[in-house]
Amino acid sequence: MRYPVITIGRQHGSGGRTVAEKVAKELGIKLYDKLLIQLIAKESGFAEEYVKDTDMRRIQSFFYGMYIDSRNLPLEDQLYIAQSKVIKEVSDKEPCVIVGRCADYVLRERKDVLNVFIHAPLEDRIERVRDTYHEIEKDYKKYLTKMDKQRANYYNHYTGKKWGTSESYHLVYSSELGIDAIVESIVSFAKGE
Amino acid sequence: MRYPVITIGRQHGSGGRTVAEKVAKELGIKLYDKLLIQLIAKESGFAEEYVKDTDMRRIQSFFYGMYIDSRNLPLEDQLYIAQSKVIKEVSDKEPCVIVGRCADYVLRERKDVLNVFIHAPLEDRIERVRDTYHEIEKDYKKYLTKMDKQRANYYNHYTGKKWGTSESYHLVYSSELGIDAIVESIVSFAKGE
Repeated sequence: MRYPVITIGRQHGSGGRTVAEKVAKELGIKLYDKLLIQLIAKESGFAEEYVKDTDMRRIQSFFYGMYIDSRNLPLEDQLYIAQSKVIKEVSDKEPCVIVGRCADYVLRERKDVLNVFIHAPLEDRIERVRDTYHEIEKDYKKYLTKMDKQRANYYNHYTGKKWGTSESYHLVYSSELGIDAIVESIVSFAKGE
Repeated sequence: MRYPVITIGRQHGSGGRTVAEKVAKELGIKLYDKLLIQLIAKESGFAEEYVKDTDMRRIQSFFYGMYIDSRNLPLEDQLYIAQSKVIKEVSDKEPCVIVGRCADYVLRERKDVLNVFIHAPLEDRIERVRDTYHEIEKDYKKYLTKMDKQRANYYNHYTGKKWGTSESYHLVYSSELGIDAIVESIVSFAKGE
């Protein structure tokens, strides 16, 4: 494989998680999504629920320079460090697909990592979140816009790059094109065929 | 074909123009790049040289609201109107690939237009501009950064969207992945296979 490690960033409701699952299955490699959360929880000592929602909270490390070792860092930063360690370890071990968690940035020194981002028109995302994920919200547009902002804040804070902008990724797809066609395309680029 | 019309935006030096040529050839459809410039020149009455460099100039239409018909508009805006007219006409007539010129925005009402953007790491772009296009510049980094800014200003001004951001396109590729692999991928999505 030209790219044994594939990172997939995504907008909530874009179908990016399904793409990741199918790519991993198609290539016969591991998917780190929920599994990653379990490993990070173990590494950091935080509860899985806390790890899971990490990019949903406000980043608070304004006084970063004041801390001298990782035990004194804000919880968010301790978690980021544990998470980066786990991402490096699992991707060193074997080919895999990693969902979210700034994995593209954590693995930026490697030349054999394929970075992908999935987005979708707002109407499609609302439909998917409401009808497929069965999430109940008063105002779906507001909910998704807020979620995008939180993911962007988290990513931008830790990477110094911009979440969802073209130049941060090798490949960006709108899921309007169809999940299966996107999966096939990623698999083909990963194999280098 | 699922998408008979393909628009390709690109960073200068990304190889996007070559991608466009090859996609058109592969699909056996017309390429509107230099040909588009000739048609716009004819439609607008401006010289081809003037049309060619349109996104390289500063947008000056600050007093848009003051003009009552297109003959009194700033030259840039007259050109944009002529250009939009030509893009609509040619894409109505037959399947084609259109390079740049905000074609994605001009054709936004159509559901059968595939919008693509090509970018590349700065080092690759410098190499391509210097060694393949044989452009001579003192400071290539400065030159390309300026060019990006001009293209973005032009696009953003006329479309109200953001040039080069994921959400403006169905597909975004880094040309690091290889021109031929990208061409094959675009062709496959265009055909809907």
